[in-house]
Amino acid sequence: MAHLLLIHCPDEPGLVYIITGVLFKHGLNIIRNGEFVERDGNHFFMRTEMAGAFDPEALQVDLRTGLPPSAVIRLTTNQPKNIVLMATKEHHCLSELLVRHEFGELNARVLAVISNYEVLGDLTRKFNLPFHYLPHADRSRETHEAEVLAVLAQYQPDFVVLAKYMRILTSEFVAHYSNRLINIHHSFLPAFVGASPYAQAYARGVKIIGATAHFVNEQLDQGPIIAQNVIPIDHTQSAHEMAQAGRDVEKIVLARSLKMVFDEQVFVHGNKTVIFD
Amino acid sequence: MAHLLLIHCPDEPGLVYIITGVLFKHGLNIIRNGEFVERDGNHFFMRTEMAGAFDPEALQVDLRTGLPPSAVIRLTTNQPKNIVLMATKEHHCLSELLVRHEFGELNARVLAVISNYEVLGDLTRKFNLPFHYLPHADRSRETHEAEVLAVLAQYQPDFVVLAKYMRILTSEFVAHYSNRLINIHHSFLPAFVGASPYAQAYARGVKIIGATAHFVNEQLDQGPIIAQNVIPIDHTQSAHEMAQAGRDVEKIVLARSLKMVFDEQVFVHGNKTVIFD
Amino acid sequence: MAHLLLIHCPDEPGLVYIITGVLFKHGLNIIRNGEFVERDGNHFFMRTEMAGAFDPEALQVDLRTGLPPSAVIRLTTNQPKNIVLMATKEHHCLSELLVRHEFGELNARVLAVISNYEVLGDLTRKFNLPFHYLPHADRSRETHEAEVLAVLAQYQPDFVVLAKYMRILTSEFVAHYSNRLINIHHSFLPAFVGASPYAQAYARGVKIIGATAHFVNEQLDQGPIIAQNVIPIDHTQSAHEMAQAGRDVEKIVLARSLKMVFDEQVFVHGNKTVIFD
Amino acid sequence: MAHLLLIHCPDEPGLVYIITGVLFKHGLNIIRNGEFVERDGNHFFMRTEMAGAFDPEALQVDLRTGLPPSAVIRLTTNQPKNIVLMATKEHHCLSELLVRHEFGELNARVLAVISNYEVLGDLTRKFNLPFHYLPHADRSRETHEAEVLAVLAQYQPDFVVLAKYMRILTSEFVAHYSNRLINIHHSFLPAFVGASPYAQAYARGVKIIGATAHFVNEQLDQGPIIAQNVIPIDHTQSAHEMAQAGRDVEKIVLARSLKMVFDEQVFVHGNKTVIFD
Repeated sequence: MAHLLLIHCPDEPGLVYIITGVLFKHGLNIIRNGEFVERDGNHFFMRTEMAGAFDPEALQVDLRTGLPPSAVIRLTTNQPKNIVLMATKEHHCLSELLVRHEFGELNARVLAVISNYEVLGDLTRKFNLPFHYLPHADRSRETHEAEVLAVLAQYQPDFVVLAKYMRILTSEFVAHYSNRLINIHHSFLPAFVGASPYAQAYARGVKIIGATAHFVNEQLDQGPIIAQNVIPIDHTQSAHEMAQAGRDVEKIVLARSLKMVFDEQVFVHGNKTVIFD
Repeated sequence: MAHLLLIHCPDEPGLVYIITGVLFKHGLNIIRNGEFVERDGNHFFMRTEMAGAFDPEALQVDLRTGLPPSAVIRLTTNQPKNIVLMATKEHHCLSELLVRHEFGELNARVLAVISNYEVLGDLTRKFNLPFHYLPHADRSRETHEAEVLAVLAQYQPDFVVLAKYMRILTSEFVAHYSNRLINIHHSFLPAFVGASPYAQAYARGVKIIGATAHFVNEQLDQGPIIAQNVIPIDHTQSAHEMAQAGRDVEKIVLARSLKMVFDEQVFVHGNKTVIFD
Repeated sequence: MAHLLLIHCPDEPGLVYIITGVLFKHGLNIIRNGEFVERDGNHFFMRTEMAGAFDPEALQVDLRTGLPPSAVIRLTTNQPKNIVLMATKEHHCLSELLVRHEFGELNARVLAVISNYEVLGDLTRKFNLPFHYLPHADRSRETHEAEVLAVLAQYQPDFVVLAKYMRILTSEFVAHYSNRLINIHHSFLPAFVGASPYAQAYARGVKIIGATAHFVNEQLDQGPIIAQNVIPIDHTQSAHEMAQAGRDVEKIVLARSLKMVFDEQVFVHGNKTVIFD
Repeated sequence: MAHLLLIHCPDEPGLVYIITGVLFKHGLNIIRNGEFVERDGNHFFMRTEMAGAFDPEALQVDLRTGLPPSAVIRLTTNQPKNIVLMATKEHHCLSELLVRHEFGELNARVLAVISNYEVLGDLTRKFNLPFHYLPHADRSRETHEAEVLAVLAQYQPDFVVLAKYMRILTSEFVAHYSNRLINIHHSFLPAFVGASPYAQAYARGVKIIGATAHFVNEQLDQGPIIAQNVIPIDHTQSAHEMAQAGRDVEKIVLARSLKMVFDEQVFVHGNKTVIFD
């Protein structure tokens, strides 16, 4: 287990010296260090992996003393995160995550799967995980979300992953998991609004399709981007084949995004991410 | 020089047999043949490279007889096309095309360069090509476009290439060069509307930027897509560096699109392209 | 179910006309047609998807009559193929294929999994498939291969897929499944020979790693290439992280290659493939 | 102009604190800082962009005092480097660099072009640069290299760029420009040895071709890799078309590598590079 220190604050001279001085005083050895200053916003980010025995409270006090008052200081570890997965009918993202979880590649403990359909229950149970079927039919959006929140509350997850969960979430729901709710969605050049984006992309003859993993904020398909990738396609591929190709991109992009988030490589600042290797 | 036959029409049984029969009767040897049937639209496309001596009119008559009345039949060659390039201030696409032209890699003769600024005149003259400076200042859009059209009319180009020409063209202008006007523009996942797209992309922290080459129809940045490509970026790149990376993609995508168009590999049908290798 | 006709032979004038004439005579409607002539070798390839009721033997007789004597004529369908998977200890390719199989995305029936280790047995059994543990320890290569061949013989698979099967196969083994044995292996620019390629790639600081799916011929890592892909990496990734990134590429490349092979899109000719969309 | 400090040495606790303390003492403000510790080799790298008035000698003395004796300390700036380009007959890399140079995008001053053929002289002169034609015919490799070295000596370049210079250089030549000689070459998966690699790649049916930019050490196509990229291809492309696609990759990879080197982003250590954003 590595200890991790993530700090961000308005930039000013001497920040690295101040922080590394505090770590030195507490006997911590820096294993890996990354800094970044966003020049436009003049904002400083630093992520440090460190080893050694230390008193977390005393460390925080010393950091707090040296740093600007608005500094955000996060002292954590790279221990596995607790997560709940939400899906609808498509299996590809859920399969990918369940398999990686089974083989210990996700740096997370999947506590449960929630779906508004039953179809992915068999898959989930193959991996001996609880499957909560919470249909949205015959109830209001508010009622349904309350049911989902109630199940989530049982598990107290660090993160909720929308692994092709195809329901729009209200901003009330999203507010419960601010910067802890991650979504994957298909992406096109150019973007297509409205229903059946693959049909639209086919009709337009696009040559590239892609996927974007992002934190969810008030609007479902916006929020800070964590990772993106694309795949080339051509006119010979039907809308159906384009969708399959898109799914291959989606699942890998989502899995890699989660690994970066769970390994604490990702800062969220405003509507963007700053990600350290 | 290869003779090329490009046919598209509503699909029906026996089209390949009919066409190849006509070619056989006229003593033409097929060097390369590609067909594609768009299943949704039930539309047939066929591109044939062929060799041999033949009577073009008699061939067209026989093809016309055998094919559905709405068939579009194009008998052409892979001879270099005549083109005019239009640019504004950025050099990267113009440089790329002038260099490829100089070394005979574009399958085109660049007849002239038109710009609404003087800045690219020196570059153009290095390659011994006419440079027409047609400023847009102090005149109406209609007047300016009339001046551009007058210069274009002198050259009678097969295609007009917008190599980072940053003025919006009216649909009247575009109508003069239907399916003969090619543009390159930057592309993002997601798309950004409005000014300073790179600044917006930076603020959103996108991880991929790209470029799209397309035929221009009534709306400048729409129309059938010819080619697209992308490049990965990250938060460490400033908006300025992102723009430079985007330019590298733009110029290669544009040059490759032109080669495909000039080699007669590209069908335009509705708002999409069908491209044969 | 679509009927498929795959023909390749030395090129000569009129082949498309002859073949489409035979299909027309037998009342077959061409749904999709692709041809390619390899100019260096002057070799003709044609793949046709067709619909209609017909007498296969009469069709073959007519094709045989019209085509050069050395023509290879394959009349088949796009029905699912029967396959056996072989793996060693790494799960990623096997997981990918078992999941796709479970959801009917592979156009194949997985009959069984064979491994020289027990470790992937649990995974296989989750998907209710037979797992044959055939250890290689304490027996000669010949004895072990004979045991594998005996198990394969029970299943009579159309194809055998080496899903990270890490034993070198003798040319005697390979000869049993000529053009029916598919392998995936990591690929680097430049190539690294010998053990621990990821460690070598790390030491050399490569910026790209990839994967190649190919048919196996006498030498394990050679044979006609079906598909390749790559992923960018940098110095911050350890050899271990590079290997994980490589695995993501390997599994997708393998799965897509299999789909193309099972859909009968792939010709093998000499040491290369010709693949139709 | 930014001042840059590049340090690498065996890792030990407190290095960042020590270095940032020295910078703080000398009144330098850190604009951008990057560190990396190669864990396998336990080696520390740090690159700092900094602003402020300072005494370079006093700074070096203080850094030398605080750091391990084997530390390599490089104090430099991001001022344009002086370079000489070498080419043979292919224009694409030379064109790319001359155009970028013309528009101030290379962070370098091209002092001259040297070639063993005359063919690229016209291109070079368009950009008003000296062109040295040094034919290799009718003289020994040693004599020819002595002539090249003599011309290089006139210019005293910081870097020599092999922009498709197709002669093998002796290790004696290379020794004159250790870590200052940069080459671009095509790359394949798998690698092909011997002549006509594109013909071999075509015959093997590879699906990806690429390019590698690297520092030259004793063996021409080896040495620390700076950047790589690839492009997908398929069986429809002839060896000639593959070579054209490869050239598009080569020129962009080379230009981007040079920018990183001239901006002092690149450490060379052993046979690999560590590159900071």
